[in-house]
Amino acid sequence: MADTLHLAADPVELTAELVDVPSVSGAEAELADLVERSLRAQTGLEVIRSGNSVLARTNLGLPKRVILAGHLDTVPVNDNLPSRLEDGVLHGLGTCDMKGGDAVMLNLAATVDRPRHDLTFVFYDCEEVEAARNGLGRIERELRSWLDADLAIVCEPSNASVEAGCQGTMRVELRTSGVRAHTARGWMGVNAIHGVGEALRRLESYSARTVDIDGCVYREGLQAVSISGGVAGNVVPDLCVLSVNHRFAPDRTPEQAEAHLREVFAGFELTVTDSAAGALPGLGTEAAQELVRAAGGTPVAKLGWTDVARFAALGMPAVNFGPGDPTLAHTQQENVPVNQIRQCREVLHRFLNED
Amino acid sequence: MADTLHLAADPVELTAELVDVPSVSGAEAELADLVERSLRAQTGLEVIRSGNSVLARTNLGLPKRVILAGHLDTVPVNDNLPSRLEDGVLHGLGTCDMKGGDAVMLNLAATVDRPRHDLTFVFYDCEEVEAARNGLGRIERELRSWLDADLAIVCEPSNASVEAGCQGTMRVELRTSGVRAHTARGWMGVNAIHGVGEALRRLESYSARTVDIDGCVYREGLQAVSISGGVAGNVVPDLCVLSVNHRFAPDRTPEQAEAHLREVFAGFELTVTDSAAGALPGLGTEAAQELVRAAGGTPVAKLGWTDVARFAALGMPAVNFGPGDPTLAHTQQENVPVNQIRQCREVLHRFLNED
Repeated sequence: MADTLHLAADPVELTAELVDVPSVSGAEAELADLVERSLRAQTGLEVIRSGNSVLARTNLGLPKRVILAGHLDTVPVNDNLPSRLEDGVLHGLGTCDMKGGDAVMLNLAATVDRPRHDLTFVFYDCEEVEAARNGLGRIERELRSWLDADLAIVCEPSNASVEAGCQGTMRVELRTSGVRAHTARGWMGVNAIHGVGEALRRLESYSARTVDIDGCVYREGLQAVSISGGVAGNVVPDLCVLSVNHRFAPDRTPEQAEAHLREVFAGFELTVTDSAAGALPGLGTEAAQELVRAAGGTPVAKLGWTDVARFAALGMPAVNFGPGDPTLAHTQQENVPVNQIRQCREVLHRFLNED
Repeated sequence: MADTLHLAADPVELTAELVDVPSVSGAEAELADLVERSLRAQTGLEVIRSGNSVLARTNLGLPKRVILAGHLDTVPVNDNLPSRLEDGVLHGLGTCDMKGGDAVMLNLAATVDRPRHDLTFVFYDCEEVEAARNGLGRIERELRSWLDADLAIVCEPSNASVEAGCQGTMRVELRTSGVRAHTARGWMGVNAIHGVGEALRRLESYSARTVDIDGCVYREGLQAVSISGGVAGNVVPDLCVLSVNHRFAPDRTPEQAEAHLREVFAGFELTVTDSAAGALPGLGTEAAQELVRAAGGTPVAKLGWTDVARFAALGMPAVNFGPGDPTLAHTQQENVPVNQIRQCREVLHRFLNED
């Protein structure tokens, strides 16, 4: 392995180099070391290390600051290493999610020589595991001032389009209860599984909202994700538990989403088991508008939940912008078209560097 | 423990003696030994042993033969031994299910001195466990001729009423399938749990038959007994499995019951996982009519499935008639009113003995 990476060279080669250093969540040390050494070799950057995260920033006293963020970890290896370039597409674990984006960020750290805004680069660990281990969360708790900025760009795969904001997510549990009885005398009991029929009926006929915010169209959803009930093959069951996942547009807070679900499932015992706020697209700010213009095209709504929401919660506009198709993330055959890597690098360089 | 039981004495005391020899399924040897020795001490009975079952019969060449059958085993001990007599009620494991009935049978073996029909007594093992271990099934396979008769009386608890025939039981599995998708893009998938809503709707609105056969009223039932589905909290599930238990009156064969369920659940993938035929009450025969007259009152339908159905399948009328409330079977507080033990003994003695 190279002692440092050649950051200013081709971001496609850089992507392959990053991919070929495995960095499954919790085992990012080797890659973080390499990224840290490579960034420290640059001039004009303040670099610090936090666990397996590496942070770097300019301190030029410019009026505005832009954060670029990317996680270093991947989901587990699935017989998809090392990287392989074929017909303009780079294949392998992490190519899409999200070492292509990391490579773009590293290249920018070395090539934006006349920045229009001060820049902060955040390469963090443990994004692909439970929220409590997320490196960005740790940085927020321990190095809060490193996250002050006017715009955050999370370089997660977005097909090289600006994906703005993100939807919120909420999981609720509906429990129906009944009265046990022997099935030979079923009329002496109350069947809790039958009682769930009405909730499934409402799910089936649910009409999800489509919400337009700043030109971004968010399509909501309400889906049963698990169901379980039953005591024995000859017993009328007295309990059934249905879990439902709601994805809601960022014009609603989690509290408003919960109130909506309580209305949809009126008459059922409902418990919120998990929720995360969405993020408004925040495209009204000048910095965000500049990025949209640099990217060309029309920004689209981010439907999944990403760490964009963490930045939005800190009070700044935040967008996703990175190479790769997000629907390929976490699949064995994940890949990234190399032209998207180059395109993202060009757009961001145009946005961040003085002409 | 006594070397032999005093069979001709009070059947209530005899019940207590049987209860106080624990005989959880598979561990009936000690009780079977005691029953075998006690029967061998009687005159006029041919006695054989098969595993932990004991069989005894008269061979008087009478025109008709009546079988009396009872299992010796109990469900597991649940801090409810030894037996305890209180205010005319005998409490303890097996008092109700079914050592009260066994005691009546043993008493009859010793006191019916001028039988109107030849008699066969079957005390068998492992009724309370999976059907493959059932002692009566083993006897049917290995000692088939011992089960030839014109009427079978299974002395399971029936509140000292003649319960005639029994309902059939069938379990079916409905599987709905769908297409997985991320819940953030739920419209790209097909939710298999939502798909079960229609089956639950049909269950909810199902109108069960009530069937009168020979004056016995059978009340059918159709109950969901388990449901499961779900992949992960953020995935549209592609499979849901619903198990349904159908109890059907003995005017239908299992094949007819299955055809009925395929009609009820038309459009769903349905698999029969388990079924057992019911038994017609068979009260039209002379022997059955005599028993009904001896018992007084009106025979009622047996709703649960019992070994009565095994005898019915062998081509003879079969009824339940024994002391104890069947809804107390398998409960910690099971008990039997002693007057029901005495009443069953008197009814059967009157039925089986020449005046």
